[in-house]
Amino acid sequence: MKSLYLEDFRPGDRFESPGITMTEGAIIDFALHFDSQPIHMDREAAKESMYGGLIASGIHTIAVTFRALLMTGLLANNLGSPGFDELRWLRPVRPGDTLRAIAEVLEVRPSSSRADRGSVRFKCTTLNQQGEPVQTVICNQMLRRRPADAEP
Amino acid sequence: MKSLYLEDFRPGDRFESPGITMTEGAIIDFALHFDSQPIHMDREAAKESMYGGLIASGIHTIAVTFRALLMTGLLANNLGSPGFDELRWLRPVRPGDTLRAIAEVLEVRPSSSRADRGSVRFKCTTLNQQGEPVQTVICNQMLRRRPADAEP
Repeated sequence: MKSLYLEDFRPGDRFESPGITMTEGAIIDFALHFDSQPIHMDREAAKESMYGGLIASGIHTIAVTFRALLMTGLLANNLGSPGFDELRWLRPVRPGDTLRAIAEVLEVRPSSSRADRGSVRFKCTTLNQQGEPVQTVICNQMLRRRPADAEP
Repeated sequence: MKSLYLEDFRPGDRFESPGITMTEGAIIDFALHFDSQPIHMDREAAKESMYGGLIASGIHTIAVTFRALLMTGLLANNLGSPGFDELRWLRPVRPGDTLRAIAEVLEVRPSSSRADRGSVRFKCTTLNQQGEPVQTVICNQMLRRRPADAEP
């Protein structure tokens, strides 16, 4: 795969990641570290909840989504992110669900102050194995422009 | 600490968490799982980057912020979140930084369709040990109303 720079992106470009399966073990481990609420780590309490069973922390879902995005090559020349917008959790993620991320480029903007970079805004949708969206988020990433000595 | 229900929140209420220290080990471990970019896990490459050294993944910062928020008791009767808005990473988080979260309630709204719940919207600012904001985010959480048989 060739390394993608800022000028390689156009609005409408679409990237799709491989899948990542959310095991019950990973869901509970993540919860133990970062989101220790019963619906994320107590199988018995979760059964009695409005969700009817364990569900992944939304923070876990965004973390796995980011891992999936990295696998698309979209962020090969990433310099960082000023932030994300409109993070929405649409459906529960349950043990055994396999997630993949679809990124669609919304906007590409060269920096007005720095000639070597620019920003890409994209919408990232996380789907489960049924193709149902479980999360959407608008990401902004600062990417390098192609240096003069890079492969074209 | 008494368990907080929806009706215990007022706009302007402020919650402050204990601190959590971001070790180099935790920063690299998180990156290995979820955000495997050189600036988050390669000390040598990070030195040569625009950040001058390793920095935590922004996803790690939001995860630790959520952990810190849970320690405030604010989410004792949490039923889930439809999403977050305006997530902004303002300053790098470096190994050895100690983060704490400040939540300020913006809005409290009983559900129009479900008598047992409502939503709280709050701004969460994550500060480092110098009191500098490293991240801000607007959180929305669905919380239980106090049940008739709860301690008042």
